[in-house]
Amino acid sequence: MRLRELAHALQCRLEGDAAIEIVRVAGIDQAQHGDITFVDNPRYIPHLASTNASAVILAEDLAIPVGTGFAVLRSTKPYVDFARAVALFLPSSAPAKGIDTLSAIAADARIGAEVSIGPFVTVGAGASIGARTTLYPHVAVGQGASIGDDCVIHSQCSIRERAVVGNRVILHDGVVVGSEGFGFAKQADGTHLKIPQGAAVVIEDDVEIGANSTIDRPAVGETRIQAGTKIDNLVHIAHGVSVGRRVLLAAQVGVSGSAVLEDDVILAGQVGVAGHLRVGKGAMATAQSGIPNSVEPGAYVSGSPAIPHRDWLKSSAAYRQLPALRKRVAELERRLIELEEKLKR
Amino acid sequence: MRLRELAHALQCRLEGDAAIEIVRVAGIDQAQHGDITFVDNPRYIPHLASTNASAVILAEDLAIPVGTGFAVLRSTKPYVDFARAVALFLPSSAPAKGIDTLSAIAADARIGAEVSIGPFVTVGAGASIGARTTLYPHVAVGQGASIGDDCVIHSQCSIRERAVVGNRVILHDGVVVGSEGFGFAKQADGTHLKIPQGAAVVIEDDVEIGANSTIDRPAVGETRIQAGTKIDNLVHIAHGVSVGRRVLLAAQVGVSGSAVLEDDVILAGQVGVAGHLRVGKGAMATAQSGIPNSVEPGAYVSGSPAIPHRDWLKSSAAYRQLPALRKRVAELERRLIELEEKLKR
Amino acid sequence: MRLRELAHALQCRLEGDAAIEIVRVAGIDQAQHGDITFVDNPRYIPHLASTNASAVILAEDLAIPVGTGFAVLRSTKPYVDFARAVALFLPSSAPAKGIDTLSAIAADARIGAEVSIGPFVTVGAGASIGARTTLYPHVAVGQGASIGDDCVIHSQCSIRERAVVGNRVILHDGVVVGSEGFGFAKQADGTHLKIPQGAAVVIEDDVEIGANSTIDRPAVGETRIQAGTKIDNLVHIAHGVSVGRRVLLAAQVGVSGSAVLEDDVILAGQVGVAGHLRVGKGAMATAQSGIPNSVEPGAYVSGSPAIPHRDWLKSSAAYRQLPALRKRVAELERRLIELEEKLKR
Repeated sequence: MRLRELAHALQCRLEGDAAIEIVRVAGIDQAQHGDITFVDNPRYIPHLASTNASAVILAEDLAIPVGTGFAVLRSTKPYVDFARAVALFLPSSAPAKGIDTLSAIAADARIGAEVSIGPFVTVGAGASIGARTTLYPHVAVGQGASIGDDCVIHSQCSIRERAVVGNRVILHDGVVVGSEGFGFAKQADGTHLKIPQGAAVVIEDDVEIGANSTIDRPAVGETRIQAGTKIDNLVHIAHGVSVGRRVLLAAQVGVSGSAVLEDDVILAGQVGVAGHLRVGKGAMATAQSGIPNSVEPGAYVSGSPAIPHRDWLKSSAAYRQLPALRKRVAELERRLIELEEKLKR
Repeated sequence: MRLRELAHALQCRLEGDAAIEIVRVAGIDQAQHGDITFVDNPRYIPHLASTNASAVILAEDLAIPVGTGFAVLRSTKPYVDFARAVALFLPSSAPAKGIDTLSAIAADARIGAEVSIGPFVTVGAGASIGARTTLYPHVAVGQGASIGDDCVIHSQCSIRERAVVGNRVILHDGVVVGSEGFGFAKQADGTHLKIPQGAAVVIEDDVEIGANSTIDRPAVGETRIQAGTKIDNLVHIAHGVSVGRRVLLAAQVGVSGSAVLEDDVILAGQVGVAGHLRVGKGAMATAQSGIPNSVEPGAYVSGSPAIPHRDWLKSSAAYRQLPALRKRVAELERRLIELEEKLKR
Repeated sequence: MRLRELAHALQCRLEGDAAIEIVRVAGIDQAQHGDITFVDNPRYIPHLASTNASAVILAEDLAIPVGTGFAVLRSTKPYVDFARAVALFLPSSAPAKGIDTLSAIAADARIGAEVSIGPFVTVGAGASIGARTTLYPHVAVGQGASIGDDCVIHSQCSIRERAVVGNRVILHDGVVVGSEGFGFAKQADGTHLKIPQGAAVVIEDDVEIGANSTIDRPAVGETRIQAGTKIDNLVHIAHGVSVGRRVLLAAQVGVSGSAVLEDDVILAGQVGVAGHLRVGKGAMATAQSGIPNSVEPGAYVSGSPAIPHRDWLKSSAAYRQLPALRKRVAELERRLIELEEKLKR
């Protein structure tokens, strides 16, 4: 693609040779001749001096080092335009439209227009699949489940009976929606009676869920992932959890039963959240945090048990010095005894 | 269902209007007209005053606040009867009996009576499937594997070759039983020789395993999950692990090779257990604990490395005060030097 | 198998009765009559006195306790020869050669000689499968993906479009290779624009990946797992990560985006690695470590945040004594005030 066409597609102002042939989008350090890259994070500005990229997407006001040879696409939002450029260069891998003859679709399932349903997909009785939705091979859609329009459900996903999935939802390979929550009543003989977990599970519009993550359903009430939330791989969402809008959950996060994550919460990798608590709007937790109690909106927490991030920075630095501190206390004790003895005399 | 019928089904004594139509089981806060709810945990007793439920399952001796309008089912075990009520209202989603024509069942596989085997299920040579067992779509049963009676194996599960699964076992979607343990012998050139892991893996009766959990098999000996144990989602059980009876493992727990969890152990979410150790009968660990050494029966541990829970509560509280403690020690040092100087004079 | 034949197969020197019939390989404590076991770790030498094994694989120079009844296979590398013995006794469960008629193979896919492709396998357009490779039931191979020779891909794996898998690679059940990385650009309205993640993902020769692990691909550049690396179950490798040669990653490890793990790194279970950092050659981290910054080659770290293992041992011991330390400081403060008062007088 000529840089001229790319600038037009992205609606960016072009500085430099419009005729350059762009063949790939690349990171600034890996970029070669023919590549376009971008700088958004100021930390990467120094790399401009040495990049081999043929073109760079840059903020409107960013000065270019003297002597560089690349063309520039000026953007009001370089990271977003980078994302759009990546999409333009992505080879299409969309499967063919239609319903593969090797699938098993219940006679009464409602199938929208222009779907793409791959081989060995199963769609249960009473289920519905929205228009233009793609079901990759081996997807299992349970009885009465509902999937909206323009979704992409990758291979080996399981959408359990009566689960509700909105529009433009992306589920990566192996995601399970609507597995039964972990709920048992202890009986007199010490065994655990299963509390059937068959209530609602709802994935709202524009949610994306990473590979092999699991979203459980509860015995009563519902589990709900609200619109625009993005969930990474191997995340566990327990029964009855409510996840707000635009929440970001990094890989291997676990959220226990009936917890509420309000809008715009961000949990880094391997964070654990206890049950029956509320993480307030916009709160953030760093990787491996363990959240045992509710967190205020806007709070920034770390550690296990999680404490305010600033405190944790100090405490974790002090932790490393703990043995030294212990020695200092022992030394103080020794010297204090000396003084006490001296004063007794 | 009339409340009269529900009371009869649960064998509970009814107080109030027997003719009420009950349409749903719900949590006490979410319950609306037509719902039945329950109170077992004393912490929820105050909610009785404001619930909109039409009926509540309550302990025999629990006094009801004045002015409430709900009917009551008196129960000796409200949580258990709640579980039974949930089961009564659950819409059936059992797949049809029989063997789907789109499955691939080895000619010599033994298939019990009244099974339900969905489309795209594979059952390998010499495998056996017990009576009334359900295999949802895409389940893979390996050569010579054995699954007992009345099991429910959800979509995308893989029961590897020669694995043994007992009766009334429930495996949620994506569970892997009998994957090969992580065992290698380091060779002189630094590469790792695979130690084949093909020994026994046994899941006993009444075990339930959550979505996308993995149960490895060892090179020698066996991996065994004993009767009545319940395992949540995304749990890892390594090769040669022995899990006792009635154990509860919450989501994302990982148990390393050859560890022994005795009966009635409870591990909360994201707990890690090192290899070649023993967690004693009835021991408990709170979320994210890391257990490096054997734990006494009945112990209650927390933290990483795990220590007695009481100690951990104190230490983790003190951790937050560490920077302050360090300042106090520095201040002590300053003042002690002053005193020492004074006494020298 | 006669011990004579086994000695010959393993090329070990035999001491004792060559005619013993060996029926199984077992651990030294579990071994019974007819079993062969081994001792490599010196810690197990005392068990030689009590084992019931009929034969033991032992180092050349290891003295045998007086009065034992077992035969001995002398080995220069007992653990490696144990691994080879295990392989000799493993029942074959290799599926039949050929392409199952219930599979869905694209017309233009290139399929090598002597493959074994099970029922319900899908191979997309333009994909290639190497010679003697096994695809178990329900494996999904995306468009243009490439799998080398002599691989074993277990059930329910998903090899996404254009992913590249080398030779002799083993993927256990449910592994996902090439799922889309977790990358979004925050927009002015607070929503997150998906940055398409369709760049390269490469699994080199002799890699083994455990059940339900996920290997993401990036937007630009590549994710690469280099030759000979072994990855356990439920591990998350984010987009753009580079994992070196002969790396060992235990279960539930998570590696964040663009991190580099150099050759011979070893991460124990549940370790988390932050993004955009480098873990140097041969570095090791103990279980549940959280690695926020780059780690020097050969370093040995523990804790979250990770610090040198020696320091961590001391700090975690001191952590348990923190409440006592706090009391000692309070006591020092009390006594110091007394002294100060005394000196004022």
